Amino acid sequence: MKTITSRDNPLYKDLKHLAGSSQARRKAGQTLLDGVHLCQSYLALRGAPLHCIVAEGALANPEVADIIMQCESAHAYVTAMPDALYNALSQVEHGVGLMFLIATPVLAAPGVLTASAVLLDNLQDPGNVGSILRSAAAAGITQVYCSSGTAFCWSPKVLRAAMGAHFVVDIHENVDLAELVKAAAIPVLATSGYATQRLYDVDLARPVAWLLGHEGQGVAHDLLALATHQVVIPHLGQIESLNVAACAAVCFFEQLRQIQSK
Amino acid sequence: MKTITSRDNPLYKDLKHLAGSSQARRKAGQTLLDGVHLCQSYLALRGAPLHCIVAEGALANPEVADIIMQCESAHAYVTAMPDALYNALSQVEHGVGLMFLIATPVLAAPGVLTASAVLLDNLQDPGNVGSILRSAAAAGITQVYCSSGTAFCWSPKVLRAAMGAHFVVDIHENVDLAELVKAAAIPVLATSGYATQRLYDVDLARPVAWLLGHEGQGVAHDLLALATHQVVIPHLGQIESLNVAACAAVCFFEQLRQIQSK
Repeated sequence: MKTITSRDNPLYKDLKHLAGSSQARRKAGQTLLDGVHLCQSYLALRGAPLHCIVAEGALANPEVADIIMQCESAHAYVTAMPDALYNALSQVEHGVGLMFLIATPVLAAPGVLTASAVLLDNLQDPGNVGSILRSAAAAGITQVYCSSGTAFCWSPKVLRAAMGAHFVVDIHENVDLAELVKAAAIPVLATSGYATQRLYDVDLARPVAWLLGHEGQGVAHDLLALATHQVVIPHLGQIESLNVAACAAVCFFEQLRQIQSK
Repeated sequence: MKTITSRDNPLYKDLKHLAGSSQARRKAGQTLLDGVHLCQSYLALRGAPLHCIVAEGALANPEVADIIMQCESAHAYVTAMPDALYNALSQVEHGVGLMFLIATPVLAAPGVLTASAVLLDNLQDPGNVGSILRSAAAAGITQVYCSSGTAFCWSPKVLRAAMGAHFVVDIHENVDLAELVKAAAIPVLATSGYATQRLYDVDLARPVAWLLGHEGQGVAHDLLALATHQVVIPHLGQIESLNVAACAAVCFFEQLRQIQSK
């Protein structure tokens, strides 16, 4: 384990830059995972990080000590620093004092849709994007495609909300969703409050692609027109719409219910 | 319509205090609804506010003008103020410049649970609480009971996330959930990742109470032990849990599916 003591240390300066700038993370193809849960998930599912960074005040924490041991066994760099330096990097208030520097995965260009997938058109809220990734992973859907207007998936807020889903799902960003939908080999289902076909009346016990849209405007009209089905989640009462992440969960788990009841 | 021009105006000082302090809102039994959508919903579902507050820059907006007209027809106070004063009140960035001051509803002490309900035990995140209120309202569930540790439902973040659900749902706060569950006349279902009974194997085509817990720890153990059923949402893949608001949506809409397919 090495120790950093100065804000002028080159590694520290790099980390500070990454921590503070979404553009820097995109450009470097790297991001930071903050907290024990995300780091444990990464170790279990993807292996060692590029670098394990720990606050000195966290060294005595048994979960942190165990993670450091695993990183050192895998010959990953481990660097400790004073709590004040660590806290200037971290976006987590009252966090435990542990983060991983990781490379964001580089994926091949998206091919033809053949397996169940989620398509996110212009989703804005990082919490919604993270929750959708988490629900998809829990429902066994491992392909995610995001339009260029969708929140950057490897941002700290999306990572926190997804609770490790990033490490079991292939996330394609900046995708031309219209091209993807046109070429799809499976049905593409868009949810819409104006649709007349009920979600429950569609055969979901097969691979389908779920097309979900912007929190306020929904799926863009031209994209919606390309979908194989437009479906509605039947509702009661005077509130006519659902949060997009809630809507996604209902769709994914209805698909899983149909698959499992076959 | 009156106009405020000074930060020393007594109404402005009251509004500023309410806008900045959750404690002040609780104590006054009043809150602020910010934005056209929430104000329109309130007018449609609950009627006129105590006071309609508008930024001078928003007066030309046709939706705002329509809302002001409705307020004046109902003899509600309408007060305009310079944009700078309004923006110092509002928590919405780039908002349209309209808010309502309303009284938060005063409800009778909770009786015995007989209608479908949602019980929130120590939920922390305002976005989750708001999403759950919205899903409940859309699924036709109109009774919500919150433990004292749950996020205050009439805060701006919860109001924004619930998109008007507050105005069709009865929200009881600071409720002793253990007493409520013990006396319930309907089954109380808690979701738990450790449960063995599948959500889909329970008869939900009847009134039930959904017990949902803290984002990290779930429902408190003593409370969980009082539930009639502990149910699990079957999942696939390596991610074993769902966001609590996603979980709530799956439960509420499975109940509605069963009710509608009877």
